[in-house]
Amino acid sequence: MLEYIRSPKDIKALSDAQVTVLMDELRGEIIRTVAKTGGHLASNLGIVETTVALHRVFNSPGDSIIFDVGHQCYAHKLLTGRRESFSTLRTHGGVSGFTSREESEHDVLTAGHSGSALPIALGLARANALEGKDNYVVAVIGDGSFTNGMVYETINNCEKDLKLIIVLNDNEMSISPNVGGLPKYFTRLRNSKRYFKLKKSVQSLFQRIPLVGGKLVRAAYKTKEFIKHQLLHTNMFENMGLYYLGPADGNDEKKMEMLLEEAKTRDKVTIVHMMTLKGKGYAPAESQPDLYHFAGSFDPAVGAVAKHEESFSTVFAQSLCRLAEKDASVVAVTAAMDKGTGLSVFKERFPERFFDVGIAEECAATFTGGLAMGGKTPVCALYSTFLQRSYDQILEDIALQNVHAVIAVDRAGLVPGDGVTHQGVFDVALLSTVPGITIYSPETFKETEECLEGCVFGEGLCVLRYPKGAEEQYDRSGFALAGDGVLLEGDMDAEIVILTYSRVTKEAHRAALMLRKKYKTSTVKLVKLFPLDRNAVISACKNARVVCIVEEALRRGGMGEAVSSVLSEAGLSPRVCIIAVEGFLTHATVGELYEACGFSCDRIAERIESVMQE
Amino acid sequence: MLEYIRSPKDIKALSDAQVTVLMDELRGEIIRTVAKTGGHLASNLGIVETTVALHRVFNSPGDSIIFDVGHQCYAHKLLTGRRESFSTLRTHGGVSGFTSREESEHDVLTAGHSGSALPIALGLARANALEGKDNYVVAVIGDGSFTNGMVYETINNCEKDLKLIIVLNDNEMSISPNVGGLPKYFTRLRNSKRYFKLKKSVQSLFQRIPLVGGKLVRAAYKTKEFIKHQLLHTNMFENMGLYYLGPADGNDEKKMEMLLEEAKTRDKVTIVHMMTLKGKGYAPAESQPDLYHFAGSFDPAVGAVAKHEESFSTVFAQSLCRLAEKDASVVAVTAAMDKGTGLSVFKERFPERFFDVGIAEECAATFTGGLAMGGKTPVCALYSTFLQRSYDQILEDIALQNVHAVIAVDRAGLVPGDGVTHQGVFDVALLSTVPGITIYSPETFKETEECLEGCVFGEGLCVLRYPKGAEEQYDRSGFALAGDGVLLEGDMDAEIVILTYSRVTKEAHRAALMLRKKYKTSTVKLVKLFPLDRNAVISACKNARVVCIVEEALRRGGMGEAVSSVLSEAGLSPRVCIIAVEGFLTHATVGELYEACGFSCDRIAERIESVMQE
Repeated sequence: MLEYIRSPKDIKALSDAQVTVLMDELRGEIIRTVAKTGGHLASNLGIVETTVALHRVFNSPGDSIIFDVGHQCYAHKLLTGRRESFSTLRTHGGVSGFTSREESEHDVLTAGHSGSALPIALGLARANALEGKDNYVVAVIGDGSFTNGMVYETINNCEKDLKLIIVLNDNEMSISPNVGGLPKYFTRLRNSKRYFKLKKSVQSLFQRIPLVGGKLVRAAYKTKEFIKHQLLHTNMFENMGLYYLGPADGNDEKKMEMLLEEAKTRDKVTIVHMMTLKGKGYAPAESQPDLYHFAGSFDPAVGAVAKHEESFSTVFAQSLCRLAEKDASVVAVTAAMDKGTGLSVFKERFPERFFDVGIAEECAATFTGGLAMGGKTPVCALYSTFLQRSYDQILEDIALQNVHAVIAVDRAGLVPGDGVTHQGVFDVALLSTVPGITIYSPETFKETEECLEGCVFGEGLCVLRYPKGAEEQYDRSGFALAGDGVLLEGDMDAEIVILTYSRVTKEAHRAALMLRKKYKTSTVKLVKLFPLDRNAVISACKNARVVCIVEEALRRGGMGEAVSSVLSEAGLSPRVCIIAVEGFLTHATVGELYEACGFSCDRIAERIESVMQE
Repeated sequence: MLEYIRSPKDIKALSDAQVTVLMDELRGEIIRTVAKTGGHLASNLGIVETTVALHRVFNSPGDSIIFDVGHQCYAHKLLTGRRESFSTLRTHGGVSGFTSREESEHDVLTAGHSGSALPIALGLARANALEGKDNYVVAVIGDGSFTNGMVYETINNCEKDLKLIIVLNDNEMSISPNVGGLPKYFTRLRNSKRYFKLKKSVQSLFQRIPLVGGKLVRAAYKTKEFIKHQLLHTNMFENMGLYYLGPADGNDEKKMEMLLEEAKTRDKVTIVHMMTLKGKGYAPAESQPDLYHFAGSFDPAVGAVAKHEESFSTVFAQSLCRLAEKDASVVAVTAAMDKGTGLSVFKERFPERFFDVGIAEECAATFTGGLAMGGKTPVCALYSTFLQRSYDQILEDIALQNVHAVIAVDRAGLVPGDGVTHQGVFDVALLSTVPGITIYSPETFKETEECLEGCVFGEGLCVLRYPKGAEEQYDRSGFALAGDGVLLEGDMDAEIVILTYSRVTKEAHRAALMLRKKYKTSTVKLVKLFPLDRNAVISACKNARVVCIVEEALRRGGMGEAVSSVLSEAGLSPRVCIIAVEGFLTHATVGELYEACGFSCDRIAERIESVMQE
């Protein structure tokens, strides 16, 4: 069936039986592909029926269907002309694992961060209204994203009549099971089917109370309208001005069609609350949705296996546990990433000292400031790309308050597979603007442990950033300490200095070894980026003809520019060349991204050689 | 009475009559002082009774009272040992207009941005709980701040038993009257006093229904528990897991004391909903709370007068209206700053094309992305300091989407009076990291008009940044175009080049005139910061011994570092010196701040002279 679907139009006329076959085929295709390429599995399996219903009820791309975060768009991609290329999922030049405007007119948003779908949808709906268009805009949002403040900020602006429908995809978890009061409230809503029946009972109850004599009846009469009002407005979303439909079974395609058709008839912004089963249709994923939220390649007949490889995240988390053992003031904070950041081990060991605030990086950072004011030593672990959400809170609510807190920046640097919305390349530029901040960027597991200790026992706002995955292996024995957080390999009077930090040091150092055959070349590795030991850097560069800064981070605002101005202000005048990330980078392996950025040792050596020749 | 209050302890034992006198004195002191120094008036007058009640019921600093934004803390300051210095309000070295940790142990948070009080309070309350302390933490939050997502993110984490009390100070406006569905909901809550009476009626109703025979009674019995549950959980805050008390009159000191005492007895996080009258006790402010939200100095007998001086904000807004007249695609977005940004004129002229999303910069930016996707040309006006809240959204939801949108950055640069949380000095470093961005930083009204036109008819994400207040006056006739957005005054082969942009150009240029007596000196003014016309800059600096970059923005990540690396990479080797903002800056006049940063022409000339001598 699926091979005949070139565009969503082709599924409108299908019979019920054909739709059932189609959904089976979609599931099969998703399981087969993810088993091969890796990807988000459980959420994509859970939303197959709803995706089919959405494309039968609405007319994309005239109507806009926007998936929040976009990690649940596989069925959507398969139905919108990407079946043949779907096997290239998450590979360089292939289909993105998230919705992507570059890929298809059916992908409204190049997505990846939580909570953006609704304000985008509201903007589109307002634009449509101004243009007099009668297209619908549909935002599909997981219940996990409802822990994100942008959703409420936007609902607050949804009061007007707009052709805007919000589908709350409630699978009782975001990445890990949800935290907080709202998920509990969703559970109450979920269990409130009786509410609809009872609403009728109550109405009929009041219709039957005879309007004659007695205190009881008068009280009943007086309260009737009030109770009806309360019952009809008893739901939080209705309180916030939305029309509410549900809860309904989101894995029932027919019911979802009916509900969405019903939503189209409403005269105000409508929320359709539907429940789906994460991993639906693949038993191992149904029973362990956590494990299958994101799965690496696996054998579908056997199922995925939880991996316990040592990584910067596990090293960070284990080290933090050791420090917490010694120091009772240490507490940990994260934003829905207890597993990703490795902090689930901390959570198990110190449940009272662990705080997961949901997908709410803003709250995480300010809450961290509050914990620090209360005398704790909070360590807040965020992914580099999501930390972008909390810049102001880090600046104003931690740094400005002159308290001691630690931010662990996971996935700092290039990230494989996930692509443009997940690259951790902005944090150095962002965080280094924060007055008084200390930023460590270790290259090895051992340095990570040491730097974390430096952060925890340090002063003010201390940051520890490290990449996804494992440390690089090579001979580091030539490096010696040459300043505060500065290591040097090679001569102090080198004519070429390659200054670098973090994971890319391996390639930078290999380039230095290559260039050394011809030029006196040294490698300077920064483990502490800020405050920069200016004297150590100046001293290492004092005889350099060329200083090349290699950084696995954005060029603008990065170390290259910082070091360049340090050297110029000191009156040194080497030729500076900066090899860094220049802009947005799409999905690929880290190796492919290194090639694209000119980070391989060959490219670095070539580039420096050409500057030497100028 | 007030002069005997050295600390909050001194007000606990006062008689009712004495409290009344005290409150009158507080009002008098606030009106007298603000009339002289300028400041936030209406919000401070509205919260006098509540502040007294808070300090009588709680024991600061053991208990923590945290004011959101902090623009309503004057009575608090007068009661916590700052009466004698209060006349120095908002002046250099004097009392800050916001709460300030440096000023007093009673100021928990150095505040200024909306929505931070609650996550800080939650952090403190959690820390207290871990320490086994039984202190209370109270967050005082205006209804305007409830349009900010952080409040919901944090409420979602408030389910546990904590000694945390949220005072919702509901005056039906933030800075301007509130927008959106939530304020309407607050109105419903406000008008729901009958709810409490009815709750009793309903309970009694059900107690009276005889438990004998008939469908009616069975239905009633079945629904009884359900209805009670609904009635007790019918309120949005209760749905979110809080205990709710109110609404109550926040201008009734006795009632507030009772309510706060009641809140202390609850076993979970409690929200106390109280209504206050903005401007209470000063008739002109009561009738025009908008005008008195922030007032410059005025004669209390006459009242404040709305000022209509020409400023960058008014020039921006008028220009935008002219462009919107010509181009129907132009729409405007702001985050609760329709007056501050001057956009209220746009709102009047084009009500359908104007969107105020509330104090929600995150939503504003992503919503702007959505409008752009819908074919509109959105112009989103934010203050520089508040734009820090929307960095990720600007990067991911506008720039990455490859749509055309404009961001107007008001209050870019140093800001008088408001102090550390309001300085607009981070936006250049932040926004310039956004790939593909265009950033204009005009110095004059005329340039502002031209740049806005460049933005509106430009491509991709275009930013226009401009300072608070009016343009500087001096002879600019010597400047001539020397590149794309680059103006030059002086020789092309100058030995000293002063490179600058925005308001500080006047001082930089005056320094150039001073130095010119001795050295061949030129001034390069950038009107377009990014993409930087590198060739024009290189060309202007090709013979320079010293290039001095003067920027009214943060040094780290600023133009100084960017230009320094451009010159080094081009093989030029002038001595670079950067005069820029180095860190957090407190409240003072712009002139005083210029002195502190070394921005006066004398200091600039001195600095360059000393580099020339090195």
